[in-house]
Amino acid sequence: MRLCLLALAAMFTSYMAAPAVWAQTVVATASSPGGVLTVDVQLDGMGKLAYDIKRKGKEIIAPSHLGFNLANAPKMDDGFTVKDKRVSEHDDTWEQPWGERRYVRNHYRELRVDVEQTHRSNRRLAIVFRIYDDGIGFRYEFPDQPQLRDVAITDELTEFVVARPATAWWIPAGELSGLEQIVEKAPLAEIGTANTPLTLRLDDGTHIALHEAALVDYATMWVRKVAGQKLRAQLAPSTTGAAVVRHGAFTTPWRTLRIADDAPGLYMSDLELNLNEPNKLGDVSWVHPSKFVGVWWEMHLNKGTWNAGPKHAANTANVKRYIDFAAANGFRGVLVEGWNRGWESDWGHGGADFSFTQPYPDFDLPALAAYAKRKGVRLIGHHETGGNVAAYEKQMDAAYKLYAKLGVDSVKSGYVHEAGTMQFPGPDGKVHYGNYDSQEGVRHFVKAVTAAARYRIAVDTHEPVKDTGLRRTYPNWLAREGARGVEYNAWGEPPNAADHEAKLVFTRMLSGPMDYTPGVLSLVGAGGKTFNSTQAKQLADYVVIYSPLAMAADLPENYAKYPAAFKFIRDVPTDWADTRVLNGAVGEYATIARKDRRSDAWYVGAVTDGTARTVAVPLAFLDPGRQYVAEIYRDGEQADYRNEHRFDLVTETRTVTAKDLLDVRLAPGGGLAVRIVPKQ
Amino acid sequence: MRLCLLALAAMFTSYMAAPAVWAQTVVATASSPGGVLTVDVQLDGMGKLAYDIKRKGKEIIAPSHLGFNLANAPKMDDGFTVKDKRVSEHDDTWEQPWGERRYVRNHYRELRVDVEQTHRSNRRLAIVFRIYDDGIGFRYEFPDQPQLRDVAITDELTEFVVARPATAWWIPAGELSGLEQIVEKAPLAEIGTANTPLTLRLDDGTHIALHEAALVDYATMWVRKVAGQKLRAQLAPSTTGAAVVRHGAFTTPWRTLRIADDAPGLYMSDLELNLNEPNKLGDVSWVHPSKFVGVWWEMHLNKGTWNAGPKHAANTANVKRYIDFAAANGFRGVLVEGWNRGWESDWGHGGADFSFTQPYPDFDLPALAAYAKRKGVRLIGHHETGGNVAAYEKQMDAAYKLYAKLGVDSVKSGYVHEAGTMQFPGPDGKVHYGNYDSQEGVRHFVKAVTAAARYRIAVDTHEPVKDTGLRRTYPNWLAREGARGVEYNAWGEPPNAADHEAKLVFTRMLSGPMDYTPGVLSLVGAGGKTFNSTQAKQLADYVVIYSPLAMAADLPENYAKYPAAFKFIRDVPTDWADTRVLNGAVGEYATIARKDRRSDAWYVGAVTDGTARTVAVPLAFLDPGRQYVAEIYRDGEQADYRNEHRFDLVTETRTVTAKDLLDVRLAPGGGLAVRIVPKQ
Repeated sequence: MRLCLLALAAMFTSYMAAPAVWAQTVVATASSPGGVLTVDVQLDGMGKLAYDIKRKGKEIIAPSHLGFNLANAPKMDDGFTVKDKRVSEHDDTWEQPWGERRYVRNHYRELRVDVEQTHRSNRRLAIVFRIYDDGIGFRYEFPDQPQLRDVAITDELTEFVVARPATAWWIPAGELSGLEQIVEKAPLAEIGTANTPLTLRLDDGTHIALHEAALVDYATMWVRKVAGQKLRAQLAPSTTGAAVVRHGAFTTPWRTLRIADDAPGLYMSDLELNLNEPNKLGDVSWVHPSKFVGVWWEMHLNKGTWNAGPKHAANTANVKRYIDFAAANGFRGVLVEGWNRGWESDWGHGGADFSFTQPYPDFDLPALAAYAKRKGVRLIGHHETGGNVAAYEKQMDAAYKLYAKLGVDSVKSGYVHEAGTMQFPGPDGKVHYGNYDSQEGVRHFVKAVTAAARYRIAVDTHEPVKDTGLRRTYPNWLAREGARGVEYNAWGEPPNAADHEAKLVFTRMLSGPMDYTPGVLSLVGAGGKTFNSTQAKQLADYVVIYSPLAMAADLPENYAKYPAAFKFIRDVPTDWADTRVLNGAVGEYATIARKDRRSDAWYVGAVTDGTARTVAVPLAFLDPGRQYVAEIYRDGEQADYRNEHRFDLVTETRTVTAKDLLDVRLAPGGGLAVRIVPKQ
Repeated sequence: MRLCLLALAAMFTSYMAAPAVWAQTVVATASSPGGVLTVDVQLDGMGKLAYDIKRKGKEIIAPSHLGFNLANAPKMDDGFTVKDKRVSEHDDTWEQPWGERRYVRNHYRELRVDVEQTHRSNRRLAIVFRIYDDGIGFRYEFPDQPQLRDVAITDELTEFVVARPATAWWIPAGELSGLEQIVEKAPLAEIGTANTPLTLRLDDGTHIALHEAALVDYATMWVRKVAGQKLRAQLAPSTTGAAVVRHGAFTTPWRTLRIADDAPGLYMSDLELNLNEPNKLGDVSWVHPSKFVGVWWEMHLNKGTWNAGPKHAANTANVKRYIDFAAANGFRGVLVEGWNRGWESDWGHGGADFSFTQPYPDFDLPALAAYAKRKGVRLIGHHETGGNVAAYEKQMDAAYKLYAKLGVDSVKSGYVHEAGTMQFPGPDGKVHYGNYDSQEGVRHFVKAVTAAARYRIAVDTHEPVKDTGLRRTYPNWLAREGARGVEYNAWGEPPNAADHEAKLVFTRMLSGPMDYTPGVLSLVGAGGKTFNSTQAKQLADYVVIYSPLAMAADLPENYAKYPAAFKFIRDVPTDWADTRVLNGAVGEYATIARKDRRSDAWYVGAVTDGTARTVAVPLAFLDPGRQYVAEIYRDGEQADYRNEHRFDLVTETRTVTAKDLLDVRLAPGGGLAVRIVPKQ
């Protein structure tokens, strides 16, 4: 019996007639600089807040609720009145220390709406929208106010009501396997509770990527499908109380929607980077985008073990071999996994089993670090935590200090565990178990990266919390995993499918760099399992799947077998002056051109799904009137990921100019890689 | 990178080869007494538990995961080994003090599987299945064990993977409006996070109702659609820590699946009642199934107010009028809402605003209680809490004591609030806000009912936690609301549709009695809004929508206008010796016959959706060879819920025997009510 709710509403709004209670009134509105996107903020008769979004006059997000339930105070969900509203315009351009493009333009109109719950001792809240032509971000700002100094949020009631029938590319949230799931395509009405980025294609072709920016000291936002196409924020649960607990003034992360005519348009947006805070680390010349090899793939092939024993891969002699190979081929880094004590343990489930400072006896860390340095190579450190944050945080400083002393300036961290069972230091001193997506998990990942920064160490986080653009604020956060990597081709059930990259580009890759570990030219996993990829696609991945820290994952002996293909892996850089997505469709294909940050060379990568197709590569991005040599690595005529012709690779060179257009056929499961250098 | 999980698995299972790690092995199996249903329990190579369900040899629940994540200890989700398994058979019949049938048969086979996590200090857990021919219940049993004396459950990982394409009738969980939502029909793949009972129809016609039984001191189970047709338990969140916190030995509620060939088969099952504990109250002769009238509908029509003031409905003179009307027409109870101080308040949002002992000055409680008693009528008390459990629990005993002293032996309680904002007494002494579905909410509702029992008071809970069969254990829990009632026809946006009852019967009504407040013969709400119902359906509701406490909701003056129809409301009982669902389809129609508990009379009710249809009512349930008089209340030839002919009611009597079959046409939005009494 809810009539009383109306009566109740009537008591603290001035509406006495039930119908009026539900009527929506627009209280504020603003458009993007180019007028492409418009946001309306609305109030209903119960003083509940909502917003909607129109693109070119057409509604794409229908009126969607805004508000919170709190654990320690009445809800901030109704009885709102508008105290102030302001629209301002902002336009600047900033430089990235490294990235997909050097200069980023930040041009938006900001709509700020200050609201008050007059019937709740005048508690205040602000909702701030930043409206770009290619997307919208909005967040809540809690002022420091005596009547609500501590805020314990149980539910963020933010809704996203998609106004037109849509197709979704998504993965479920809160699954044991975390973010390492196959991206599924489904009608939006059929999704469950999803991780973000959540990529949508509306029936009119409009593309939307729903995500968040600047996830700091707050719970990760999942989006729950309520019913039909109504989505609602669901904060990752804490196991110690309310999902989010804050004191004094704070802001939530930005809730973001990239909105474009097509999939390439989604990728070209810098929305989340723009919504993050500028670099807080100052000089980051000690952060080195680069390529690396390492003691890794052989364990996935069951040729070596992480554990000590007869097959222990991280032994001094073997690591020397990798260092020599790296030095000979211009790779800056050599990753070594399984170097430290603890791998035989119960993975920290009982307590602190991994040591992050004690090597196995057959691994001479100082000697190898020195040997590498003499050869102009750096070891890449490895911290596998097994998800035991409590144990890791106790050793973190000592571990970074050790590496810093040895000249190890980047660390790959790992959090292998089943989601929901990460171990945190409890308020009561006891370890407690929770979700890596929780506010505590979010805090830890930032803590680990900022602690590393104090030792001038860059971090590549595996099994991470999702990327929300924090690399802008902490540029030593070079890369993350956060999706199924190439290792799934070694032992995955099922392995990555032929359309995996074409999905990743327009879903996971919208959030930030991924350490995808490509370049396995041997195209074979454990027990003879073959890749759903041609050799050309392994090369294309270096351009298509962006990572400033890029691994050449295959075994040195395998690279020796394919010198022609290996040349591209040696040549391709990992830091870019500019990026252009030339074409693409979610889960089908993608063609991306990137300009080297340190030369005038351009690189093009294209991937396709299981279907062969010819992609057009217009070279208009080249300097007009200048001649270039294009080194083309393409699928052979018979190339096909389904048979032995997956190895068919054609390499050829052509002289090209900005006027040229390359028409290249991609094989089923195939790809294309091109290096374009100015003609001498 | 999750290979390590396999390695990890390998460490504490004896499986070394990855493929074997995922292979399922059946470790226990059992079938229902009649062999209709079979359950297999399985273990995979990581020692993860699963179960599946076959009906007549056909899989209907595919292998579905079992387990928990804990906040205070490693997960109970893997590394299980079977220590013991037992199958036993049980068959008895027990008597209900009141209900839809007097005698209930409880015939099942029990499969108990005791498992141990050898690698986790031998922690033990038991999974117990009770397998009936018409359904299955299973629960987890935690023994008291020193290595896990306190259990803090963050996630119950129980899955329900529906093996065949299914249609669902559902309402979303965790919505502000709680259980008062329109039941939606959708492909199972399109639901979100659902409340239970969740009713499913598989493509082969098999019907399943997913629910739970004996929800005590545990969080309510919602079911989250993970993806496709995979559902997973989601425990209603606590705002103070883990969803469930228990000490020592305990059992979870039963996870239940009623499984039948058709919708009537679902309704005929007593699964949840059988899985609840027997009556703990002993003699409950003080619990009186009965009908009542009251000061209620006039407020929904805005003719009176709950609040004090010129239109205050609960004034002495007006209540006397209802008492006289009840006495004159054989109604035992007179409900009075808005009798107590506090209705002008902010509904307890700040704190304790309602008084449960202080009447408004214009309401003479003692005098009216005495006046009623003299007339052989009882006042029905009313406790509206506004969801402020903290304030209510402080006054609860005094409030019951007052009523007991005055001879008020039943109370309607109300918890009007937006879900997620119920106020609980916090561990820190402060009030904290949470969900009525949480473990704390669940505890409160049981606490309120058992406290009432100590004063020999029966309870009718509105805005309740969902019913899970606890009326068996606490027979003073006479009824609940927990769905959209008839008041939505007064002011609902939208009002209840013509198919509302046909949906309720096979969804909400599978959980227990509902105080639906039918019998509004005037068929008109506030501001002239008309009902999507014929007058005949208002009568049918008394038989179709079971409640031992049934209101005649309309105004006395309206009953005076329709003496013929009113006769049925006066005659129909609310306690039954037997119940037969003669036919029906979810959301379309339902015909139910019930035998009076106190005479040889039978009553038949039928409802249809917006479609006119002829229902066949075979009278085979009557004593053979005996003559009866059937008093038939049916829709007139022109009756239609969409126009003024909604009032067209035909009453006729016929002599019938068990050999007869009534063929009766139901109008669009119509119904049928029949009283069948032995011929003198």
